[in-house]
Amino acid sequence: MSRQKPVMDQQDPLSVQEYMHELGLRARGAAKHMATAPTAQKDSALRAIANSLRSNQEHLLKANAKDLKAAQRLGLEPALLDRLALTVSVVEAMAVGCEQVAALSDPVGQISDMAYRPSGIQVGKMRVALGVIGIIYESRPNVTVDAAILALKSGNATILRGGSESLYSNQAIAVCIHEGLLASGLPIDAVQVVATSDRAAVGYLISMPEFVDVIVPRGGKSLIERIARDATVPTIKHLDGICHVYIDQAADLDKALAIAVNAKTHRYGVCNALETLLIHSDIALELLPQLADEYLARGVELRLCNQGLDLLNSHQRFQSQTDLITTATDDDWQTEYLAPILAIKLVDSADQAIDHIALYSSQHTDCIVTESHSLAMRFLKTIDSASVMINASTRFADGFEYGLGAEIGISTDKLHARGPVGLEGLTSQKYIVFGDGHIRQ
Amino acid sequence: MSRQKPVMDQQDPLSVQEYMHELGLRARGAAKHMATAPTAQKDSALRAIANSLRSNQEHLLKANAKDLKAAQRLGLEPALLDRLALTVSVVEAMAVGCEQVAALSDPVGQISDMAYRPSGIQVGKMRVALGVIGIIYESRPNVTVDAAILALKSGNATILRGGSESLYSNQAIAVCIHEGLLASGLPIDAVQVVATSDRAAVGYLISMPEFVDVIVPRGGKSLIERIARDATVPTIKHLDGICHVYIDQAADLDKALAIAVNAKTHRYGVCNALETLLIHSDIALELLPQLADEYLARGVELRLCNQGLDLLNSHQRFQSQTDLITTATDDDWQTEYLAPILAIKLVDSADQAIDHIALYSSQHTDCIVTESHSLAMRFLKTIDSASVMINASTRFADGFEYGLGAEIGISTDKLHARGPVGLEGLTSQKYIVFGDGHIRQ
Repeated sequence: MSRQKPVMDQQDPLSVQEYMHELGLRARGAAKHMATAPTAQKDSALRAIANSLRSNQEHLLKANAKDLKAAQRLGLEPALLDRLALTVSVVEAMAVGCEQVAALSDPVGQISDMAYRPSGIQVGKMRVALGVIGIIYESRPNVTVDAAILALKSGNATILRGGSESLYSNQAIAVCIHEGLLASGLPIDAVQVVATSDRAAVGYLISMPEFVDVIVPRGGKSLIERIARDATVPTIKHLDGICHVYIDQAADLDKALAIAVNAKTHRYGVCNALETLLIHSDIALELLPQLADEYLARGVELRLCNQGLDLLNSHQRFQSQTDLITTATDDDWQTEYLAPILAIKLVDSADQAIDHIALYSSQHTDCIVTESHSLAMRFLKTIDSASVMINASTRFADGFEYGLGAEIGISTDKLHARGPVGLEGLTSQKYIVFGDGHIRQ
Repeated sequence: MSRQKPVMDQQDPLSVQEYMHELGLRARGAAKHMATAPTAQKDSALRAIANSLRSNQEHLLKANAKDLKAAQRLGLEPALLDRLALTVSVVEAMAVGCEQVAALSDPVGQISDMAYRPSGIQVGKMRVALGVIGIIYESRPNVTVDAAILALKSGNATILRGGSESLYSNQAIAVCIHEGLLASGLPIDAVQVVATSDRAAVGYLISMPEFVDVIVPRGGKSLIERIARDATVPTIKHLDGICHVYIDQAADLDKALAIAVNAKTHRYGVCNALETLLIHSDIALELLPQLADEYLARGVELRLCNQGLDLLNSHQRFQSQTDLITTATDDDWQTEYLAPILAIKLVDSADQAIDHIALYSSQHTDCIVTESHSLAMRFLKTIDSASVMINASTRFADGFEYGLGAEIGISTDKLHARGPVGLEGLTSQKYIVFGDGHIRQ
């Protein structure tokens, strides 16, 4: 197996700043090459990375075991240990991911909108790579592969900075990626994994606009807030997912029940899970007890507005469930639980629901359940979120479900990319002009 | 005429920070309204602004006279005074601009790419306003109208901060814009013009991400650099235009001559003017003297590489022109002259030209003149600039020429918008999902 250079270790006298500067220089050099790399060469690298991951499975699991042991010593929570763990099937999934991205069509070089102008020139757009993408993420080591291969396919160079708890795993994965790049003749510096757990590395990475074109942070609120505050490189941010479903007076109750249950309980720890359910008071009398039965059967704690709480407590079967049925406070409307907890509020009109969403939504994904066409269209137009849905579970807000093939994250920014970010989100478009000696009059 | 509130004056005890905060709050409120304003209402506001500009022509010229008087007292250069001056025809052009933008199609609400996914949901994108746009610009008061109306048509609220030297003119224009908004029932706070020349206002404007979604700076290098350093709000930047034309060995010499002369001499003070001309040495013997005749006839100073200088000096007619024909230094390859000065370099291959452009181009607009299809395609793919042209004058890099209808600037950024930025560049796209009770399996 080849070794990535430069590596930060005891023998290495580089300061973190010098080290990050060196990574930046190398990335900038590789990016120039990657921008015009032929599709076939990029795809062959992706398949070679898949092969390398499979044949180095044992190395990967051994490196991961070191990380897991250190994490256990540090007393990490079981959920975090679980995210950190590589297994045979996780490694195979990473390899399959490479093959899937190889099979996606190459966005780079796509020409669109070519049209003649009255002056006689022909103007259109060509899709091009962004250049160097810095990706900062936490614990899950498979993100190293996901991020690297999406950037590679879209013609970019990447600098990856994973969590310190997965340092050994990430370095082992980096070696597999480098083997794949080498085998296909692409520059190894096209994918660099930061080899120090010094937190100062993040600070340098986000403030080298001369070397890095965009930062994609994937992680908790404190990471994102630090980056938003300190970055001088543009970012594609992924903030909280405080997602809403509003069940309208004109909703089909069967659809409403299915969507509200699926959006909350399909998976709890994901950003597109339902966190606040809004129900029109006219139908709450019938719908809320049924919904509560479904949620309680799945162990979901309900935090309700007073009106909703009174309604449930008018049924004897709910009166004893004081541990799972409580009163919501204002905090509940602004919390991303990522857990089997649901805030529920009754509203007296669609406008009240829209106002609540405007106030509390994190602009990730919000949904209305209604049979009213005009209301659905108004909701679609008014709600200012990355994904706005009609009669569909918020769990669909996902790059695979949207047909992007893969995603590097879900942007809650408005500029550049909004919602799930796939290959296209990692590219830009330049204008191209064809003339035949045309001059401006 | 109505008055804008709040206004910074002696009676007003607001600090600049409080004042900017107040503008931000008002803009955020107006943006919510603007995002869903009907097209007809926005267009009627644009036509009403045109009428107001025409009927208040005298007020505008009077206000501008105050600015001009102050500028003359401060000893501003004639070119700057010229840019600052409003005339009857400039006011009429502003009014016509409003009518032209009213006639453009509304980007907001456009739905594209709706497709069914295997899960049964239908996914696509809807174009939406960005929210609040902060625009920071210098001297030319007609930018106040241009920027305001593009933001208005694209459903955004704006906070405009013009140069201190045009404060009276900008305030008078703001009143006309407010009359138009009022007449059409749109919120006056949709367009706010900062009424203080305190430079601290810029600092607050670029660091209120809670109120401002994007900053568009239009101005000199020092302004852009300050904003790039201090802004916590994302920006759409416009840096220098160090534009190149490369005349290849396989160029049609008539086309080359026409393009090289037009790109440099059509207008000097514009960002898409040619600044460095690269000529293949094989054709320089024939072409360079002809080109030099054309440039010298127009009073353009030529700064050449040694090889080019020797070539010209081998002709007697150029030997006496030592004031207009000089040696280029390395500085010349990195200077945006915005003046009748041209840097000229002979190269021995297309690759050398491409390398020179990669090193010195400001990634604004670069052009190749060649009849070779394969070289043209390679240039198109390789050159990483906002506009890449084949056999056409760089002067075409312009929102009107590209068919955008109007432009708020030319972005040299890669994220979000690249090249001329029109209505579309002031919008974003959100994902929309239509289901019929669909849940995720």
